Formats: sequence, structure tokens, C-alpha cells
Amino acid sequence: MRLAVVNCNTSERMTAEIAAGARAVAGPGTEIVAVQPRWGAASAEGFYDSYVTAAAVLDRLAELDGTVDGVVMAGFGEHGREGARELLDVPVVDITEAAAMHAMLVGHRYGVVTTLARVRGLVRDSLRTAGLHDRCVAVEATDVAVLDVGDDLARTVDAFVAAGNRALAAGADAIVLGCAGFTSLHAALRDALPVPVVDPVAAGVVLAEGLVRSGASTSSQGPYSRPLVKARTARPVG
Amino acid sequence: MRLAVVNCNTSERMTAEIAAGARAVAGPGTEIVAVQPRWGAASAEGFYDSYVTAAAVLDRLAELDGTVDGVVMAGFGEHGREGARELLDVPVVDITEAAAMHAMLVGHRYGVVTTLARVRGLVRDSLRTAGLHDRCVAVEATDVAVLDVGDDLARTVDAFVAAGNRALAAGADAIVLGCAGFTSLHAALRDALPVPVVDPVAAGVVLAEGLVRSGASTSSQGPYSRPLVKARTARPVG
Amino acid sequence: MRLAVVNCNTSERMTAEIAAGARAVAGPGTEIVAVQPRWGAASAEGFYDSYVTAAAVLDRLAELDGTVDGVVMAGFGEHGREGARELLDVPVVDITEAAAMHAMLVGHRYGVVTTLARVRGLVRDSLRTAGLHDRCVAVEATDVAVLDVGDDLARTVDAFVAAGNRALAAGADAIVLGCAGFTSLHAALRDALPVPVVDPVAAGVVLAEGLVRSGASTSSQGPYSRPLVKARTARPVG
Amino acid sequence: MRLAVVNCNTSERMTAEIAAGARAVAGPGTEIVAVQPRWGAASAEGFYDSYVTAAAVLDRLAELDGTVDGVVMAGFGEHGREGARELLDVPVVDITEAAAMHAMLVGHRYGVVTTLARVRGLVRDSLRTAGLHDRCVAVEATDVAVLDVGDDLARTVDAFVAAGNRALAAGADAIVLGCAGFTSLHAALRDALPVPVVDPVAAGVVLAEGLVRSGASTSSQGPYSRPLVKARTARPVG
Amino acid sequence: MRLAVVNCNTSERMTAEIAAGARAVAGPGTEIVAVQPRWGAASAEGFYDSYVTAAAVLDRLAELDGTVDGVVMAGFGEHGREGARELLDVPVVDITEAAAMHAMLVGHRYGVVTTLARVRGLVRDSLRTAGLHDRCVAVEATDVAVLDVGDDLARTVDAFVAAGNRALAAGADAIVLGCAGFTSLHAALRDALPVPVVDPVAAGVVLAEGLVRSGASTSSQGPYSRPLVKARTARPVG
Amino acid sequence: MRLAVVNCNTSERMTAEIAAGARAVAGPGTEIVAVQPRWGAASAEGFYDSYVTAAAVLDRLAELDGTVDGVVMAGFGEHGREGARELLDVPVVDITEAAAMHAMLVGHRYGVVTTLARVRGLVRDSLRTAGLHDRCVAVEATDVAVLDVGDDLARTVDAFVAAGNRALAAGADAIVLGCAGFTSLHAALRDALPVPVVDPVAAGVVLAEGLVRSGASTSSQGPYSRPLVKARTARPVG
Repeated sequence: MRLAVVNCNTSERMTAEIAAGARAVAGPGTEIVAVQPRWGAASAEGFYDSYVTAAAVLDRLAELDGTVDGVVMAGFGEHGREGARELLDVPVVDITEAAAMHAMLVGHRYGVVTTLARVRGLVRDSLRTAGLHDRCVAVEATDVAVLDVGDDLARTVDAFVAAGNRALAAGADAIVLGCAGFTSLHAALRDALPVPVVDPVAAGVVLAEGLVRSGASTSSQGPYSRPLVKARTARPVG
Repeated sequence: MRLAVVNCNTSERMTAEIAAGARAVAGPGTEIVAVQPRWGAASAEGFYDSYVTAAAVLDRLAELDGTVDGVVMAGFGEHGREGARELLDVPVVDITEAAAMHAMLVGHRYGVVTTLARVRGLVRDSLRTAGLHDRCVAVEATDVAVLDVGDDLARTVDAFVAAGNRALAAGADAIVLGCAGFTSLHAALRDALPVPVVDPVAAGVVLAEGLVRSGASTSSQGPYSRPLVKARTARPVG
Repeated sequence: MRLAVVNCNTSERMTAEIAAGARAVAGPGTEIVAVQPRWGAASAEGFYDSYVTAAAVLDRLAELDGTVDGVVMAGFGEHGREGARELLDVPVVDITEAAAMHAMLVGHRYGVVTTLARVRGLVRDSLRTAGLHDRCVAVEATDVAVLDVGDDLARTVDAFVAAGNRALAAGADAIVLGCAGFTSLHAALRDALPVPVVDPVAAGVVLAEGLVRSGASTSSQGPYSRPLVKARTARPVG
Repeated sequence: MRLAVVNCNTSERMTAEIAAGARAVAGPGTEIVAVQPRWGAASAEGFYDSYVTAAAVLDRLAELDGTVDGVVMAGFGEHGREGARELLDVPVVDITEAAAMHAMLVGHRYGVVTTLARVRGLVRDSLRTAGLHDRCVAVEATDVAVLDVGDDLARTVDAFVAAGNRALAAGADAIVLGCAGFTSLHAALRDALPVPVVDPVAAGVVLAEGLVRSGASTSSQGPYSRPLVKARTARPVG
Repeated sequence: MRLAVVNCNTSERMTAEIAAGARAVAGPGTEIVAVQPRWGAASAEGFYDSYVTAAAVLDRLAELDGTVDGVVMAGFGEHGREGARELLDVPVVDITEAAAMHAMLVGHRYGVVTTLARVRGLVRDSLRTAGLHDRCVAVEATDVAVLDVGDDLARTVDAFVAAGNRALAAGADAIVLGCAGFTSLHAALRDALPVPVVDPVAAGVVLAEGLVRSGASTSSQGPYSRPLVKARTARPVG
Repeated sequence: MRLAVVNCNTSERMTAEIAAGARAVAGPGTEIVAVQPRWGAASAEGFYDSYVTAAAVLDRLAELDGTVDGVVMAGFGEHGREGARELLDVPVVDITEAAAMHAMLVGHRYGVVTTLARVRGLVRDSLRTAGLHDRCVAVEATDVAVLDVGDDLARTVDAFVAAGNRALAAGADAIVLGCAGFTSLHAALRDALPVPVVDPVAAGVVLAEGLVRSGASTSSQGPYSRPLVKARTARPVG
């Protein structure tokens, strides 16, 4: 099968890291098509970025329509998944949902460790809208910006381990890594924390593979009906 | 004071109707600046449209920054309000929230009557994210498309009255008109239903005036911190 | 328009302070009629006081019926609003609701700072019943009694700032001042805290003005139907 | 032990019926002191009545302080219980809570059948504030006024049986009789409906007896701390 | 009346202690039949034990069918109550529910103090399923194992008092002792903590007595319909 | 990898059907080990059966410990999953959770269609405890008993299609087939209903494969810590 894994920002380095993480977990028959939007923000860190990248990602997904068997939206906490489900017939998995689901299957209550404090509200809203917040007991920030995550891995790991321990103290027994594309960070956290640590891209890929394998497609009735045909104008070059 | 009232779609006719409704309720010292996004969809009916228009509206709001004292986002159920609150220091009122608040002040539980069945999920998600769904007992659709609302007013009124009565049967004692820009429809509903009917644009305007008058500004700490400075690319002409 | 602003206790000094705060924010065409109940408690601090003052306030409101265009109930967290909505056709705004609504429009999650620890349950119950608790993350007390708030302003401000900072630490990005009638305290808090601080009387007045201006009246169907005609006996002089 | 059973309205006939129901279920060593407020409404049917009777009942309870071992508040859905818990050290049981608790112990989800449609909101609010609404699936009205319940028992029973069947259709497997003082109505419903029917006064009496027997007293810390000493004025004769 | 009080584990010492506690609070006409399952675990501390003891307790209850007027299930937080309600016509009271109910009647929000940290999730799940979690603000563990509770009473009391104080700091004004069979521990906690402390066995016994006295039986419609007749095989001796 | 798929009842025919369904969807490298408990009920339909089968399934799982890479618990709505997660280090997927997750990824709100009305409460409780009920809008029964599902396929399909249409009318846009082991019923429903229909065994198998492939194991901290070593007695032959 052919899965599109869509980075939500325009950083090619991050797309490459996400692709690597996706390919590391994908089954033998799965081809990973890693893409990024053609416009938008270099990184998405907050509501404004999230809404801009949602539109940019939907533009990119429209190009992919008919060419893939499933989609993994690889922006943690980012908007847009419901729009993608309208747009496409194939299954669409948001890594935020996927990571929460995996965490809920291996732990009783989970916590999320993420980048900047400013995105905590975004992450909570995403989990609540998805109906997956009920067993989330903490969303902890590290104050490491998305594009800085890989810069000083030791410092980053320390910050995420500290955030993870705060989540454990709040009652979590499983941790979601709340950002995409950091295979080495995930490995370091898994070694440092005494509970399961979910990598959201990996969770998204295997969930999408499972949906495709079981023959699922997205509902075309009600909220996820295909978009109506109407006049639409593209964003002018700013 | 100067309030921007932002239609979420590119229909100039609807912007004009929204402007008229806003001016009808605005106080003597309030100037209404009615605008619409420079790109996007002719009408927003569903998640895909909602995410596209959110980005288009945010683009338009960025142009207005520093020129207005408050913003009314006049797309019922549409995404983007949290992004606008990041972007701007002045108060931002989404008419979805405003209408729900007015309904909760004049009734014990409220219902929403809206256009197409496909947007019911969008409306619910918006109210839940806003923390205002708890006393909402019904979101009823009429199967009248946004751009058709004014075409045959008698038929439209009948459909909305029927939807309103379904909401009353479900326990509502106040009704929110779940679409923007239809002053005559609102008047007809108010006459036909035995409970208060909230016009969302009117509610949004008076709430925004009140916030401005009481000296409020949007929080700049935490989730609504101003967007970070970073590389952002505009959408190419498609 | 003519708005009644009803202090919930029998302290004339507090009525005067509430009146001053209301007039400071009211629009040019708004006449503020500040009243207090003819019996009840000198200050309301707890459930017992709240229920007694609710009845006393309803007595007072019955006298005002037909003479005002709207009512602001100026007891933070106090009972009675649903009874007032039965009794009167004009809009009734409880400052507890109003303050929460303003806070939810300028912040993502809010906290309340209030007087004695004993009223925290009362405030939470009021917000939950109003359907506005979902985004409240903290109700913090200062252990300053209502009638002592103005006695030593510096000490009072310190206590409220400390409570505000506890609410911020709990995740709030907007603060509700959880007591009525303290303009100078509100000003001091607004200067001392890095997030919006909502004055509940101001919020109540502008919300009521907006409702009146938009032509709203309270529902007369269902739970807020006018009280039935029946034998009622007044409370004997004790 | 000595239990006060407090009717919330001023109808002596209803106090007598409530007393009879209480005595029918009370244990051999329990003395039932049935009282009613000295002022207030002939029947409580709605928010306005509920707030007035709450104050009247609290006045009456203050007289009883020190003379009883426990209190049963026998107004279904009525306000005031938290005030009574502040006022008194002995256990206070609201029949609304008691009936919901009994229903939750004998059924998986329960429904309430009550008098006028106008009190449905009051009943729901009471159950939600009590934290007992989660398993309530229906509050059904009969349009029989409180003081008319006994007038035409056959017609009343028919109306309550119909309401009960609507609750069963909504998923209830236990029914709460949502009004006080109607022993014969309870008996008729129990015979006519295929599920347990809880009489709220009976539930309240046995729960209060159990609390007293197990040595319980009401908390005197936090929200239920005893009322503060302060100036309080009685209601003048109206 | 005849009440079965069913210890959930196979420890005879604990059954004896539970019986003593039950008899201490039972009314003069109540005969307590204290039993324990014929197989299962020496103590139940976690989900695995809880599911095993649920089946063992249901086996034991099947033997008692027709011989008792009511059942108290005396395993705090343990599974099985809904199965017992299917199996039996007489009222079944789980001490977890009973204790929460008593706590909710004497306090505004409650906390639970229990044995090992590992059972906190089990206790929360039990309270949530029962619809009684809404006003629970803390479940605090002591790290004292069930069978060690009585070993060093002074140390045990200290640990439970510390846990109770943590619950008070979290907002509780009533405490539930979250384990069965420790009359002396309950007495010590009641003396050491400034709020009501509920003994779950006592609460369960008086609630069951009350249900029986008021003529209640378990619903036989819907979820608690009697088990269907079908082939069932007993667990072989392992 | 080697996955155990555990039927919850003792029917060999159902185990065979579940095994066939699991193998139909499993990836090429996955070996399905289909087992059933050695004791218990021929079919599980209600709380009593559910608790008995939970213990029987846990007994069976203890035998499998160390021999499989993951477990699929194939009893829809049945108890025991948290106990299995204590007992085993490998991932454990309950088909109830898996089906809800798949439905939430392809639809906005989902409904469940199941066998007898008596199990509706069990299914709801299971989804709520799993934190996956928030977007479930209907649990509809067919009154077809588990062991009769295959007897008259046309009649069974009609009943499930009718139940599915009731769920759609309640707002669902995706359907979960709420029973295990009926491949042909699933195929017929998928053809007859206009929305995605999730087969729970298929969902469970692909979710478990994905968890195993991504290297997940169950948490061993907190609620899912391995069971303590203690005296345990087997159930005597009854």
C-alpha cells in the first residue's frame, strides 16, 4: 500500500526525519510518500500557525487525492484532520489521535510531553475535539522550540525527561511524545522513562496501515461528506 | 470605537448583509468596518471550507492589525478564532460564542438552527471547544445552503421554524440562528417562535462593544501569546 | 436605557461602590439604578447567606418589575439568577456568568480570585450550573472577608495578586475578580498581573446593555415561565 | 433518634402526608418531627418558588438547631440543602439526592417523573449540582400541579405512568417519583411500572437514619463551615 | 432482616473484622451473615485480583440467593456489583458506592484514602462507572498493603492521616476510608482528621438496611435482567 | 509475530469463526493463535456472564504468558482487559476499544449495533471506562442472541441494518458491529449501510499488529503493575 505522510510545516529537514521514522516502522509492503505543504510556516507552534498550516496541508492533500491508500497527518496537535476527511475517501490518521490511542491501549492514563508552553492549549483542544482527552492527565511543555529539538540532543532529552516525570507525578503511566519527527529523541525517552513512550509518527503509520488493511474508508455521510462544488479562490502570493 | 466585522466567505453580497445587521445594532459611537477575505470559498459549509476560510480570514485580519478596536468573526461555527486571538491584541469575538452566550443568558438550555446537515458536527465541535456546549440540547439543520438562504424567504423561514420547533421539543427554551447575515430571516423567526431567537451577528457586535468599552484586551500569555517570528511562505496562486 | 444593578447584601457602602463601578463603564444613554435588598445579610459569604440573599434580592426585584430595561445581579457566585429570570421579562445578567464569559473571550482558560476559602464551592457550583465551568482551571481564595476588602488596600492587593499567580500556575491566562464593587482593587490587579483581569460588575453592565440593545428578552417558555399565581406568605419580622 | 422532616411549602395537608410517609418507613426508635416553613409559597413549582422556599426552610431549620439528630429536606428539586449543611451539625439529606442514590443502587440508569414541565430544569440542575446526574436519562413531566396531585388519583396515576413509560423508553430501568408526600401515588406507580419506583421521602428518611446511626455529622470545614456571625435583617412583613 | 456482608478475599481474619464492623452499626433487627468467597485471592489489590474475586464473589452470592434480604459487597473498589444485581432480586450495595454517597451527603467534595498506589486507577474507574466520581477530588494511596493494615496500627494511622491531609489540600471536605474491615483505623482517622471520615462497611450496611426497609428490590428490566439460562462450566481445580 | 485472539466464551464454533476473521485480516507474518477459556459460559450476554468470563479469560491468558507477542480480547463489551494488562507485558487490545478507535478515525460520531438489549449498559460502561464514549451517540440492540446470530442470516442482517439505521438517525456516521466472530454479517452490513461498518475483531487484530510492530509493551507502572505475589485459590469444581 501507499501511505502519504504529511509534515505540516515547510521544513524539508523535518519532512526527511518524519519520513525516516515512518519507514522504520512501516510494514514490508508499505510505500511511504513523505510530503510537506508548498506554503505555510517553517514550523507550527500555536493556533495561528496551526490554522495556516491546516489550509496549506489541505492544499497539498488535494494534489494527492487518488494516488495514495491512506494519509498520516504528521503535525502533532495541528488543525485540519476533519477537513482532510471531507476531502479524501481513503483513511486519514492524525498523529495526535494515533498517539493518544496507542497510549490508552498500553497505559491507564497518559500524559503528553511537548515543545513550547504556548502549544499546550492547542494540544488539549485537539485531544478534546477528538474525544480522546478523558484519560489524559497532563500536557507538559519543555520550552524547546520545534526547530531546535535536534540542536542539542542531550539538553533536549533532559528537558523532555523532566516533563515526562512531571506527567508521571500527575498520574500518567504512559507518555506521548508530543511532536513529530524525532526518532532519536523518542529512543532516548524510551530508555530514560519507566513507562511506555509513544512515538506519534510510528503510531500514525501503523494505525493507518491497519485501517487500510481492514478495508476501511472514511465516511461520506454527514460531517465528512465530500466538499460541495462551489467557487473557491486561491491565496494570492503575498 | 472601530469594529471590524469579518465575513468568512468571499461573497460580497453576504458581507453587505452582515454589515447591515451589524450597523443596525451597533451603538452611536461605533464604526463598523465590514470586510471579507481576499481569497477562499464563496460560502463555508463544512470542515474543509472552514479550515480554508480560517486561513483566509487570518490573512485579512493581519492587514487590519492596529486599525481597529475589536473584531467580530462573522462565520457561524467556523474555525480560526484562537488564531485571531494570537494575532491581535484587541478583543476578538466569534459570533458562535456570542450567540451561545446570549442564548444562555435568556434561556435555560438552547438549540441551534442552521443550514445544511453537514455542518452540524462543525457547529458542535466549535461550541464544545469554546466550553459553551453544556447547555446546548440540539443542533438542527434545514438543508438550505448558505447562499440560498435569501432566495425564497418564505420557504427558508418555514424550514428554520420547523428546525426551531424540533429544538424546542428537545428541551430548548432559546434558539440561536446558526448562520450570519440574515436580518429578515431573524425577524421572521423571532415572530414565529415562542422563545427568544438570537441573531449571532448582533450578539457578536454588542459583546465586542462591551469588551472594548470595559477596556479588555486579549491575553498575551500562554496559548494566545503573539505568533513567533519565523519564516512563512504565502500560498502560491493555484 | 435603565439598568438595575442589584447588590446582594444590605451594605449601603457596597451598593455605592457597585454603582460607581457600573456607572464608570455604562454607555452614555444608560441610567444605572443601584439598589440593595431591604433585608438579608450585611455580606454574603457562603451557602446560607447566598440562599437568604437570593430570596431578599428576588423580593427587591419584584418591586422593580416594569421599571427597568434590564437587571444586573451584582453578587458574585450568589444564588437566585434563575428565579429572577422567571420573575422578569427583561434580560437578567448575573455577574458571575458575565465575568466568566468575558474571561473566556479574552483567554483560553480562566481562574477566579475571590474572598474567603469557604465560598470556593459556591463559586464552582454557580459556574457549573451556568454551564461555564469547563474552561475554569482554578478558584483561588485570599482569606479577605467581603467587608474587609477595602480596609487595607495594599494588603488586599497582595493577597489577590498571590491568588492570581496561583491561578496562572494552574494554567489560567485570564483572571476573574470574584467579588463585586471594588474598582480600585480591580485597577491594582490589572496592573500587577500579566493577563487580563475581568471586573465582574463592568462585565455584567456591558453584557446587559448589549442584550437590551439587541432587543433580547428572557424566555417565557419552559423553566423560565413566569411564576404561577398562588398563595404566598411574606417572612415575618424576626 | 429524632429526625426533622421539612416540607418546603406552607401547605399543612402536604406536611401531614409527608409525615405519614416518613413514619411508615421509619425504624422503631425514630421519632419524625414534621414541620413546614412559617412563610413562603403554598407549593413550590419553579425557580422563583424554590429560592423563596429555600430561605423560608432555612429560617425554620434554624429554629430546630440542637433539637434533632438529623434533617430530611422534603422538597423535590428544591434549593437550600447546602445552606442547611452550613447551618447544622447534624446530617442533612435532601430527598432529591436520596431518591437518586436509591435509584442508582437498584437500577443501571434512572428517570424522574415529576409534576409540571416548568420544573424539569430545576430538577436537572439539582441533580447536576449534587453530582448525581450522570446516570439520569430522563426527567419527564406530567403537567399535574403539586397541589392537584391528590385531587383525581386515577388521572394522576395515568399521567405518571405515561411519564414513567417515556423514561423507560429513554433507557431508564428505575424510576424516581419526583415529588414529595404522595404515598398512594407511589404505591400505584410501583404496581403499574415494571421497574423499581423510588419514593423520595422514604429514601430520604432511611438514608438519614443510616447516617445518624453510623455516627455521621456534616463537615464543618470548607464550603460547609458554619455561617459567619454578622448583621442579618429579617424580611419585613410584605 | 438478614443481610449478607461479603468479603471479597479469602482471608478469614478480614471477614471477621468486616463482620464486627457491620454488626457494630447494624440495627437491632438486622442479622449479619458474613461470608467470603470459597476461592480467589488472599487479598485483592489491583485489576487482576479484582476480576478474579468478582467471579469468586458471584459464585458465593449464587449460594446465598433466596436466603437473605440484602447484600453488602465489602470489597472497596472491586468489580462485580452489576453482576450481583443481575443475579439477585434483593438490593445489592457495593461499599464503594455507599461510602461515596455518605461522603457526598456530609461534605461538598470528597477524597478517598486507600492502600497501595496500584489500586488508585481501580477505585477511580469504580466511582466513575457508578456515576459518583463527579465530586471526588482525590484518591490518595498510603502504600500499606491490605493484609498489613492491622500490623502496625500507629504506622498505618500515620500513613492514612497523611493521605487524608493530601486529600484535604486538594479540596476535599470529607474523606472516605478506601478499604474494608478496619474499625480501629477508622476510629483513629476520625479523631485525627478535622472532617467526616466515612467507614465504607458501615455506610454499606446502613444503606442496605434502608433499601430493604423501604421495600426496594433490584430492577429486573434491562441491564440487570436475570442471567439467561445457558451452558456454564465451572472453573476446574487448578 | 504471534497474536493470541481470545474468544470470551466456551463455544468452539465461535472461536473458529473469530479465528477465521482474524486470519482474513492479519498480515503475512502474523500467526493467529485462537483460544477460548477452559471454563465459563457458552455465550456472554450481560454483567454476570461478563464477570465470570473475565476470570476465565484471565486464567487462559496466564497460560499464554511468554508465548505470544500480543493479545486480542475478542469479547465485545466484556470485562477483564485491565486485568490482562496487569498480567502480561505484551500489548493487550480489547476489540471494544479497537472498534471504537477505528470508528472514530473514519467517522465524526459513531453508533454501536449489538445483540440483546440487556447488554447495552455493559457496552456503554465499557466504552466509558475506556475513555472512548464521548463520540458514541447510540448503542442499539437487535434482540438477536449471540449464539443465534448465524442461524438465520437474512433475519439477523435485517435486524442489524434496522439497528444501524436507528444509529444513523441519532447522528452516527460510522457504525461498530458490537459482537465478535461474524464475518458474513459484517460483509452484509457493510453492503447495506451507507457508512463505514467496523468489524471489531479485524480492528483488534490490526491494532495489535501495529502496537507490536512499533515495539510497544504494556505499562508496568501504576495501575497496570504486575499482580502481587500472594496466596490464590482456584475455583473448586462446582
